[in-house]
Amino acid sequence: MTIPFNPDRFWDSLDQMARIGATPDGGVKRLALSPEDDHARKLLRDWAIAAGCTVTVDRLGSMYCTYPGVEDTAPVAIGSHLDSVPTGGKYDGPYGVLLGLEVVRALHEAGRRTKTPIVVVNWTNEEGSRFSPAMSASGGAMGVITEAAVLAAPDNFDPSFTYADALAATGWAGTADPAKARDFAAYFEAHIEQGPILERDGIPIGIVTHCIGVEQWDIIVTGTDGHVGYPMPGRRDALAAASELILALERIAIETGGMATATRLTVQPDARGNIPSLVRVAGNIRHPEVDGNARMEVAFRAVVAEVTKRRGVAVDIRRVGGYPRVPFAPALLDALRRAADGAQLKRRDMPGPIPQDALHVGIVVPSALMFIPCHGGVSHHPSESISREWCAAGLATMGPAVIEAAGGLA
Amino acid sequence: MTIPFNPDRFWDSLDQMARIGATPDGGVKRLALSPEDDHARKLLRDWAIAAGCTVTVDRLGSMYCTYPGVEDTAPVAIGSHLDSVPTGGKYDGPYGVLLGLEVVRALHEAGRRTKTPIVVVNWTNEEGSRFSPAMSASGGAMGVITEAAVLAAPDNFDPSFTYADALAATGWAGTADPAKARDFAAYFEAHIEQGPILERDGIPIGIVTHCIGVEQWDIIVTGTDGHVGYPMPGRRDALAAASELILALERIAIETGGMATATRLTVQPDARGNIPSLVRVAGNIRHPEVDGNARMEVAFRAVVAEVTKRRGVAVDIRRVGGYPRVPFAPALLDALRRAADGAQLKRRDMPGPIPQDALHVGIVVPSALMFIPCHGGVSHHPSESISREWCAAGLATMGPAVIEAAGGLA
Repeated sequence: MTIPFNPDRFWDSLDQMARIGATPDGGVKRLALSPEDDHARKLLRDWAIAAGCTVTVDRLGSMYCTYPGVEDTAPVAIGSHLDSVPTGGKYDGPYGVLLGLEVVRALHEAGRRTKTPIVVVNWTNEEGSRFSPAMSASGGAMGVITEAAVLAAPDNFDPSFTYADALAATGWAGTADPAKARDFAAYFEAHIEQGPILERDGIPIGIVTHCIGVEQWDIIVTGTDGHVGYPMPGRRDALAAASELILALERIAIETGGMATATRLTVQPDARGNIPSLVRVAGNIRHPEVDGNARMEVAFRAVVAEVTKRRGVAVDIRRVGGYPRVPFAPALLDALRRAADGAQLKRRDMPGPIPQDALHVGIVVPSALMFIPCHGGVSHHPSESISREWCAAGLATMGPAVIEAAGGLA
Repeated sequence: MTIPFNPDRFWDSLDQMARIGATPDGGVKRLALSPEDDHARKLLRDWAIAAGCTVTVDRLGSMYCTYPGVEDTAPVAIGSHLDSVPTGGKYDGPYGVLLGLEVVRALHEAGRRTKTPIVVVNWTNEEGSRFSPAMSASGGAMGVITEAAVLAAPDNFDPSFTYADALAATGWAGTADPAKARDFAAYFEAHIEQGPILERDGIPIGIVTHCIGVEQWDIIVTGTDGHVGYPMPGRRDALAAASELILALERIAIETGGMATATRLTVQPDARGNIPSLVRVAGNIRHPEVDGNARMEVAFRAVVAEVTKRRGVAVDIRRVGGYPRVPFAPALLDALRRAADGAQLKRRDMPGPIPQDALHVGIVVPSALMFIPCHGGVSHHPSESISREWCAAGLATMGPAVIEAAGGLA
């Protein structure tokens, strides 16, 4: 037993939301707690109130749009984020928030309630572009990060200004306790895949069994400076050594079925006449298997030991961040699978290679994450796009699953 | 027939000169046309006048300390530079200038003259740290660069200030025509090796047969941006591709007996969450053989073609600078060899892997470059050092050769 969801209304709402912070290249720039984010939040608030919700805001600015249940028990939550990266697209974040909105709109339109309340959540600062770290409000809510640390984060574009300042300036400093979100009975999140697999294989629904663990490293290679006219034997070139390590990371990822990327690199002394003596590489490793990151690290450290000895350089690997591996709740994943099957939609279980707010929430609350495809796997880019069919498939899957988790229609 | 040179006076003068711009770590910071360089120039001028020279300055600030000959014919010149890199040592440059000074001091003390005049030269801005390019005054004098381009070069540390401004501010804007240096009958330059070979093999005198050709490239690798959670297959990671090219450069240099160095590297988008899409590498290649650089380039372009195809990236190699291969004058090199043999000093013919002012002068004027060892091959570093024995060996070799080239004692 379910209710008629309206995929066209969902699509149109995504379109309307994408006009806020729209960039000339077809993308979206809606940094957390910016004027554009404020505009987007007000639109969500207005839509939610019109759909019969009450809207509360916590001390970290996250919005909770609560559609009442027939019982005042622990709610089922569904959400994501409305903020974007500086060169973002239309769907990374809003897809999950507005899918939740469509669920309560459909209930409201049908004049129905579920047993428990349903809360549509807009987490603040998921992207982390403006305030580090990423997903800080969901992390603060779940106790992964302290509330004080979230609020004190400086604006990456204007360090004199903090997250707390931005909350105050935009009027989104709420009074609700973020920790109340730990009482959700369940949490659902829908998101574009941000990868190429679903589209490539013609599968509209990805059931994300777990968010994979992520390790962030700084790899510091110290060699010896010298003139570029110095003979090759006897050099201790930090950049040549770092190049070997970058290729080793890539090779180990391919061999073990993980992912590893050198994302940033700086050189000293950074002069045309000098052999590099100090290179700093930012490394990111992630693996779908439980012990995958540990295995990749063992393999990488073996390469480091060999390169260090052969090239006479020193290599220091410093862990600078990361995320734990977070499995999702089997019962909620089953609800999604049943709903997809009921809608005759192909589905596939898959790991979630990219952290989402569901990673933080899933540490504390039984949670489920679902993917729909995006064209070419492209995200964090103005050309990020989805089809109407994929958009509707996600709604047809998660909508019924949320209703079911909320105890069904009363 | 020669005159008694004074190696102790030479050594003491190097020591006195090194106090100007001395840094606490034992090095020297004496950027071109800085207050320290001004101080060093005045000391050279005073010493040269005391040694019977007349001092003229050209429009690019280069100093010519002329010790008259019995005939007013084309002079024999000997020189180098007094400027240093920001973290320089005591000998890179001053060794060659003050060796020339010791030659005229010895003549003056002995009351002797050579047939032709001898000119001790201090070329402005050899290092190029303050004003690009390096060796610009000798290049301007020889017509390799236009005088206007030398004068218009902005201060690399304060772009609102030019070479011409610095000349005016320090009072070293002379009136002599720099092109007059093209009339030198011969040019000699003594320099520390800036490499490890002579010390390692216990040879105090390097006879530099030629300055090797240098090619400077920007290597631009364009891949595709993506999230670091994107699977490995299908990535077009510009940094991984660049790492292969960096290692290829190194390997080709070793295999062909050349030198190749990736010195600088920048990444876009330079973010922990993104696969690098654009990497720019500064490459420097040099080879002692006539066609060495061309052979290295052919080998490198073959690797580029393979990597481009296999990784789906684009690679653009842009030549941004370099120096031609410049052979030195056989007769002058022979004079140096005879002098070394006469002083019972071991000597070795070798290529000059690092451009010096002699490279520019050698394009127009019959020239000779000679190396003495430096400890550990270290230069452009505060710990740059030489022994008293090496210092004296250079004087004992080049002193007589200059006298001979100047027609001998009159």
